[in-house]
Amino acid sequence: MIGTVSNDGERRLVLVSGRAHPELATSVAEELGTSLVPTTAYDFANGEIYVRFGESVRGSDAFVLQSHAAPINQWLMEQLLMVDALKRASAKTITVVAPFYGYARQDKKHRGREPISARLMADLFRTAGADRMMSVDLHAAQIQGFFDGPVDHLWAMPILTEYVRTRVDTTNVTVVSPDAGRIRVAEQWAAKLGGGPLAFVHKTRDINRPNSTKANRVVGDVEGRSCVLVDDLIDTAGTITGAVRVLLEAGAKDVIVAATHGVLSDPAIDRLSQCGAREIIITDTLPIADDRRFEQLTVLSIAPLIARAIREVFDDGSVTSLFDGQA
Amino acid sequence: MIGTVSNDGERRLVLVSGRAHPELATSVAEELGTSLVPTTAYDFANGEIYVRFGESVRGSDAFVLQSHAAPINQWLMEQLLMVDALKRASAKTITVVAPFYGYARQDKKHRGREPISARLMADLFRTAGADRMMSVDLHAAQIQGFFDGPVDHLWAMPILTEYVRTRVDTTNVTVVSPDAGRIRVAEQWAAKLGGGPLAFVHKTRDINRPNSTKANRVVGDVEGRSCVLVDDLIDTAGTITGAVRVLLEAGAKDVIVAATHGVLSDPAIDRLSQCGAREIIITDTLPIADDRRFEQLTVLSIAPLIARAIREVFDDGSVTSLFDGQA
Amino acid sequence: MIGTVSNDGERRLVLVSGRAHPELATSVAEELGTSLVPTTAYDFANGEIYVRFGESVRGSDAFVLQSHAAPINQWLMEQLLMVDALKRASAKTITVVAPFYGYARQDKKHRGREPISARLMADLFRTAGADRMMSVDLHAAQIQGFFDGPVDHLWAMPILTEYVRTRVDTTNVTVVSPDAGRIRVAEQWAAKLGGGPLAFVHKTRDINRPNSTKANRVVGDVEGRSCVLVDDLIDTAGTITGAVRVLLEAGAKDVIVAATHGVLSDPAIDRLSQCGAREIIITDTLPIADDRRFEQLTVLSIAPLIARAIREVFDDGSVTSLFDGQA
Amino acid sequence: MIGTVSNDGERRLVLVSGRAHPELATSVAEELGTSLVPTTAYDFANGEIYVRFGESVRGSDAFVLQSHAAPINQWLMEQLLMVDALKRASAKTITVVAPFYGYARQDKKHRGREPISARLMADLFRTAGADRMMSVDLHAAQIQGFFDGPVDHLWAMPILTEYVRTRVDTTNVTVVSPDAGRIRVAEQWAAKLGGGPLAFVHKTRDINRPNSTKANRVVGDVEGRSCVLVDDLIDTAGTITGAVRVLLEAGAKDVIVAATHGVLSDPAIDRLSQCGAREIIITDTLPIADDRRFEQLTVLSIAPLIARAIREVFDDGSVTSLFDGQA
Amino acid sequence: MIGTVSNDGERRLVLVSGRAHPELATSVAEELGTSLVPTTAYDFANGEIYVRFGESVRGSDAFVLQSHAAPINQWLMEQLLMVDALKRASAKTITVVAPFYGYARQDKKHRGREPISARLMADLFRTAGADRMMSVDLHAAQIQGFFDGPVDHLWAMPILTEYVRTRVDTTNVTVVSPDAGRIRVAEQWAAKLGGGPLAFVHKTRDINRPNSTKANRVVGDVEGRSCVLVDDLIDTAGTITGAVRVLLEAGAKDVIVAATHGVLSDPAIDRLSQCGAREIIITDTLPIADDRRFEQLTVLSIAPLIARAIREVFDDGSVTSLFDGQA
Amino acid sequence: MIGTVSNDGERRLVLVSGRAHPELATSVAEELGTSLVPTTAYDFANGEIYVRFGESVRGSDAFVLQSHAAPINQWLMEQLLMVDALKRASAKTITVVAPFYGYARQDKKHRGREPISARLMADLFRTAGADRMMSVDLHAAQIQGFFDGPVDHLWAMPILTEYVRTRVDTTNVTVVSPDAGRIRVAEQWAAKLGGGPLAFVHKTRDINRPNSTKANRVVGDVEGRSCVLVDDLIDTAGTITGAVRVLLEAGAKDVIVAATHGVLSDPAIDRLSQCGAREIIITDTLPIADDRRFEQLTVLSIAPLIARAIREVFDDGSVTSLFDGQA
Repeated sequence: MIGTVSNDGERRLVLVSGRAHPELATSVAEELGTSLVPTTAYDFANGEIYVRFGESVRGSDAFVLQSHAAPINQWLMEQLLMVDALKRASAKTITVVAPFYGYARQDKKHRGREPISARLMADLFRTAGADRMMSVDLHAAQIQGFFDGPVDHLWAMPILTEYVRTRVDTTNVTVVSPDAGRIRVAEQWAAKLGGGPLAFVHKTRDINRPNSTKANRVVGDVEGRSCVLVDDLIDTAGTITGAVRVLLEAGAKDVIVAATHGVLSDPAIDRLSQCGAREIIITDTLPIADDRRFEQLTVLSIAPLIARAIREVFDDGSVTSLFDGQA
Repeated sequence: MIGTVSNDGERRLVLVSGRAHPELATSVAEELGTSLVPTTAYDFANGEIYVRFGESVRGSDAFVLQSHAAPINQWLMEQLLMVDALKRASAKTITVVAPFYGYARQDKKHRGREPISARLMADLFRTAGADRMMSVDLHAAQIQGFFDGPVDHLWAMPILTEYVRTRVDTTNVTVVSPDAGRIRVAEQWAAKLGGGPLAFVHKTRDINRPNSTKANRVVGDVEGRSCVLVDDLIDTAGTITGAVRVLLEAGAKDVIVAATHGVLSDPAIDRLSQCGAREIIITDTLPIADDRRFEQLTVLSIAPLIARAIREVFDDGSVTSLFDGQA
Repeated sequence: MIGTVSNDGERRLVLVSGRAHPELATSVAEELGTSLVPTTAYDFANGEIYVRFGESVRGSDAFVLQSHAAPINQWLMEQLLMVDALKRASAKTITVVAPFYGYARQDKKHRGREPISARLMADLFRTAGADRMMSVDLHAAQIQGFFDGPVDHLWAMPILTEYVRTRVDTTNVTVVSPDAGRIRVAEQWAAKLGGGPLAFVHKTRDINRPNSTKANRVVGDVEGRSCVLVDDLIDTAGTITGAVRVLLEAGAKDVIVAATHGVLSDPAIDRLSQCGAREIIITDTLPIADDRRFEQLTVLSIAPLIARAIREVFDDGSVTSLFDGQA
Repeated sequence: MIGTVSNDGERRLVLVSGRAHPELATSVAEELGTSLVPTTAYDFANGEIYVRFGESVRGSDAFVLQSHAAPINQWLMEQLLMVDALKRASAKTITVVAPFYGYARQDKKHRGREPISARLMADLFRTAGADRMMSVDLHAAQIQGFFDGPVDHLWAMPILTEYVRTRVDTTNVTVVSPDAGRIRVAEQWAAKLGGGPLAFVHKTRDINRPNSTKANRVVGDVEGRSCVLVDDLIDTAGTITGAVRVLLEAGAKDVIVAATHGVLSDPAIDRLSQCGAREIIITDTLPIADDRRFEQLTVLSIAPLIARAIREVFDDGSVTSLFDGQA
Repeated sequence: MIGTVSNDGERRLVLVSGRAHPELATSVAEELGTSLVPTTAYDFANGEIYVRFGESVRGSDAFVLQSHAAPINQWLMEQLLMVDALKRASAKTITVVAPFYGYARQDKKHRGREPISARLMADLFRTAGADRMMSVDLHAAQIQGFFDGPVDHLWAMPILTEYVRTRVDTTNVTVVSPDAGRIRVAEQWAAKLGGGPLAFVHKTRDINRPNSTKANRVVGDVEGRSCVLVDDLIDTAGTITGAVRVLLEAGAKDVIVAATHGVLSDPAIDRLSQCGAREIIITDTLPIADDRRFEQLTVLSIAPLIARAIREVFDDGSVTSLFDGQA
Repeated sequence: MIGTVSNDGERRLVLVSGRAHPELATSVAEELGTSLVPTTAYDFANGEIYVRFGESVRGSDAFVLQSHAAPINQWLMEQLLMVDALKRASAKTITVVAPFYGYARQDKKHRGREPISARLMADLFRTAGADRMMSVDLHAAQIQGFFDGPVDHLWAMPILTEYVRTRVDTTNVTVVSPDAGRIRVAEQWAAKLGGGPLAFVHKTRDINRPNSTKANRVVGDVEGRSCVLVDDLIDTAGTITGAVRVLLEAGAKDVIVAATHGVLSDPAIDRLSQCGAREIIITDTLPIADDRRFEQLTVLSIAPLIARAIREVFDDGSVTSLFDGQA
């Protein structure tokens, strides 16, 4: 046909970041061999956020990365505004990358007349213009179902277990859950670490003495063994450090704590640095200021995983393949 | 004003039912002091369903009850068609009452490229025209967050515990979870039954002997005690009857099984009637044909609870109040 | 720009199929020179369906084929679940291919308080994630307007008329409608077969004797002629076999029956095999088990047409062009 | 509870009208015993429409009546603007009353790359804020399925047949369809008029002489009989006046034409007044200026029917009951 | 009908408040003669907000009041969560009352690749479940059009002018706009204050000397007159205090500043208290801590206006009537 | 993989036009080096519009151009129908190009119970299927926020100022706003024309003599200078020609009028040709029939700007870049 206008449909990846965790965004960009699109973001005097992208994002596959760190509502709103700006600037697809998904623990009504905040966040991002979400180790896997679109759910466990394997004698290790509700995660860890025994800590009363006061109690074989205490996140660290102490009291040789998300709200730093654990291992899905780091803390980089997942999404590859077909 | 047309805005409750569980619908209507709206429902030769209401439902607050029993897809579709018919017949509000919520166990992607069927069901009902859902003991409480609107989540536990309390000596009872993931439900049961000890059955390998083959194993004090084994549903009954056996082998005095939903797919009846449990207690959220009932089976009526909840919804009362402010 | 990540935007076609009619799906794949994406689909004990795709479908143009055969509600739900899984697995576009569109005959409210089921089905597929629908010979063309998106409406008539032309002497043929409401379809057939006369059968009372009981009655010239009786679908075959008999009684030389969709609910097979028609010609938009086939039945393959339409959709060609600009 | 604010929830009916057919709106208001809410509506110099309601409509059940007469796009837009204004003024429910539904004849794609205009109109009204639609004798009943909400579909046939019964000797009447596609409507008429014979006019070639040129042809017994020619609408009146002539040529004693909607686009008035029909009977769903009326034209009022339907809707009564349970 | 369940449809008003401005909420409740529904709201350690209502809100007309004060993103999110909780707790209607509408100044794209934040906020509230919004003196009236539903736009001017009228000799007053873009507001003020002269301050260069540097410049007659400087909001007060100074330099007798919204971000308090204005008059749409108040500051209560508007909304009265038919 | 079907994803631009302004559409097509897709569009007898595209648009990026000229409701509806047809014909993206955006002046509720027509238009286009809008010089920039998607807002000012620069001695020019509300546009013009002085005309009473009757009044230095009077649109030209007269009375050397949109409703032509302005300069965003053109009228082509913007959109370039990063 004379006069036909066409182009070859080449696709372009755009990576933008909010202000919550610029180090992570930079690392992800480096892993991808690209650079972040220059973005202006600041607060007006009354706290309203202003954002603007410095380059055209038209027709791109845009990934907007923000960790939902404190002040969490500010960073959530900033990411929502960035999604809106991408939509109105004609990005072709918009993927919200939330390494730590805010409000994930409010995933159901515990009592009447509460919100289901984790669902609301999914809906807010959808309304702003998000086509897809990507997150790491959601507090409950059902949160995938809160978003009306694809969710790429990444697992940090391979990164954590690979590192832990270098830190313990796997023939003398017990994987411990700090909570009866998360024993299946501990099972997966145990399998990855060579099939050692499991244990868990009960936060409730002794099941054999119902009328006693509540206390932590270890179930399983920990005496003389290296314990790896695993959870999805550490917030104020009350539960986890309580578990460390009860394990040491129960005769554990030493205790390593491993978790994906280091929320580390006060007084977590104090508690963790003094709880007696040999090492606390987390990833950098959330920012950890240099002056909050302490001797026993090890922070593994989540950037390579996120970068690989973004690459698979952009190339129409398989995110599932990153996890041996499991995710 | 001359010529103003007004009316007093009186509201009318309408209760309709699909064909999956007419006995339950009739009981609920009786509890409410009303009768079901006459409804025509049948299958055409090729399996397409036809439904029609025999009376006007215009302006009413309609409750459409269907248990998602087998053949589950047929009854789901029938309920969707009934919702569509109510919408097009100008019902003012439409509440889907699903005592057992179908596809609830598919509440997340266990692996890549699966649906999240429980979310899809919520969306299908919303699309058909449902304003609200009501269900009993959802497999995961997060499913409340799958529906874009209010969900009245009812608990059968008070009905079950009240009955069980009459069947056991509560000073010698152990509440048992068939699964490590459901121990918190057992805790609630234990509290209701007087604070006795807890136990649970592990479906995995012995946590102290990692290389052994998988086997069921009791954790907790059951010897010489009456055990109450609790779960949300019994489908083929493999897990639960395995737990009964291991409890009896561990010296339990006797075992009572209690669950909200009696799915009872083959070969559940055989397994349950022969597993050695003293009594199996369920509610009638799902229909159980007379010829499938057996000696040890006790079926408690869920109708009073559903009727009270419908009444609270219709009267703008409080469903939460039915559960001491917890639900 | 340094660090730009881009790819060439190549598109990929993915064809998946439910369990209703695997033979058709395989034929369509062969016609397209591709293979079906391996798909796991089975029923749980209580009838809930499980589906999962065995390969990545990310970024693909996915076509999900399911014939709405009996048990129709099961196959509809399976297709809805497959669409949900495709959406959550990041397929770029999703086309529902329903060679026979279920519930198409419930396309309006015949009386108050009925659903409009054909509209509901369109909405359910949209909600699950479908971007486009493709179907063959919709019972009413208005159903195209029920879906909020493109509908590719294919016509089987060219396939049927091409075959029938080889089976009759077109100089002595009368095209007959079994129903006064479908005479325009018969007109199109007549034009394709060389412009022979039309006739139709009245299911109502003799229009000249209003008080007589209802009876079938032929209007038009059929004596001594080969009659081709045409309809969009044959369900229980009561109407069509009644029409065959009245045509033979009216002196027709012989009768050929032609229809797109062989629903063939009981007792269609018995009726058709014994009605006296020389040949019954349908397409395989619906599965027909080998043991239900009978001597006079001819089944033409619809796969080449569907494959060509899928190809045009995928290549951004023209489906309309397949029908000389008419569709 | 101290400090509770409540009111008695009394409901108020509000009737507003666009400028297309003020006489009908006034009649409907009178039948309802109310008056139209004063409304300002005019065109700006460039044709943009301005509307505003003169009284509060907050919390009311609003009915907005507009006939889709020529200039049809202007009146459609005016009604859309009125719906928007009602929505933003907090009307509780909004019912679009369109006695004649514009664009109803574009209810499917006749060929590729056409709109489905009747569906689009339904969606536009929904988007503007309509909760419900009410219309009379839709061109195709499937259009009910185009609106995502309740549609109250009224039938003018009882009004027309009641009148016609007074104008003919029902023992010597034949009901005639001008078109093979509408013979079922004629059947219903015949039943209402005492069960007389049916006939119809073919617009196609003689079905016995396929190669002849196209011509109108009567099928059925009309000689010496009073013919009642029935259709849903009369637009330019080419088809219907052609049918009158062929009936008279075939020896009909006289011909009465009856239709619901008098679109009467040029040159309908000329054609109808000169076609030889004894009487042309329509309703006033569309406005007919005094100077366009002619001797043989009878216009029956649709206002009582619309008023009764509005009353049933407002009182949560039954519109279906107006038609003996059929609509 | 035997067995009919009905109730009288009485409606109940519920007023809830976030934590941003409890004094205003309490005042509004008092004006309404009701009390706030007890609400739990606090921050978790990582900043996530928790909210829960202490009483049933089922079936109520709920008004949720939050001033978008600093920290603005936190209070926005809290209000969104409260709306979600109301929706899931079956409130019948939900009205967001935002006396000061956050992000209102980002009402358009000033440059490419910005968000339109004011529209996004409207969409977020809609998504969370808001049916209606109520606000005071929106920065641009077009923001009403950003919400997909009714917006009750209240005007504080009558409150402000009524007070100012008691503070100045209206025969010697000039109303001054700090900005050329807002001169129409000043016109309305002037009319309300008796028709005195207008003036305004230019923030741009002298229009007669284009190459001069930018400076403030008074246009209009202010010498020896009492000036009333009016605006919709005072944020950091740079513009307004600059205008006060230029007015005093131009010979104004004295200057009163009046604005609806006292955002008063730093260093507004310092600037205003030292700018030489006789009095600064605002309303309490936003909270002003006692220790931030200063001698010249007068804060008028907006509570009576909001309470009257809520009352009109609840009673299906007319908010427009509060403003003589203008709003 | 054997059997993979893929294509290279090349994209195709399709440009279609309604009947409102074919000359502009042709010019845009020429600038793009393409031709308009042949389109059938006509009115049926009763005013209903019929549209159909003559070529496949499947998979294309479609731009549908229509100027919202009088009869404005007809052309709006035609464009809506074209969008619907594009959607149903599987266009991949649909951009509504409205060089003049109809109903833009109804961008807020001036009084209660009005529509917000500009928002409604945005919603109607979205519902019909539009993904993006493109327009020139919106009456209020906030209208961008009315559309739920990207809006490419083009500025005609560079075209107008470039031309005006050739018509005046920029060292002796004053830019004049006809209205106090639009003085910022005049500022931008002044900057583009070399920084000359500003002036504006007041439509209100003399601000120094409040009790006088309303009259036009010039503020600023115009005596002996060439005045350029600027506005976004000229409708009936009452305001603008009043401003011309008052400028000439105030001693202006001569007056040039410049505006983007020539709505030119009666009696604009008479007024403008006789008002004394030296030249009236507009663009052809709206059609101007040859017989309505007059000596002093200069019409600049907007086609190159629209074509460049379409090209940037199609090529995923930057529309912002067309305006030095401002738009």
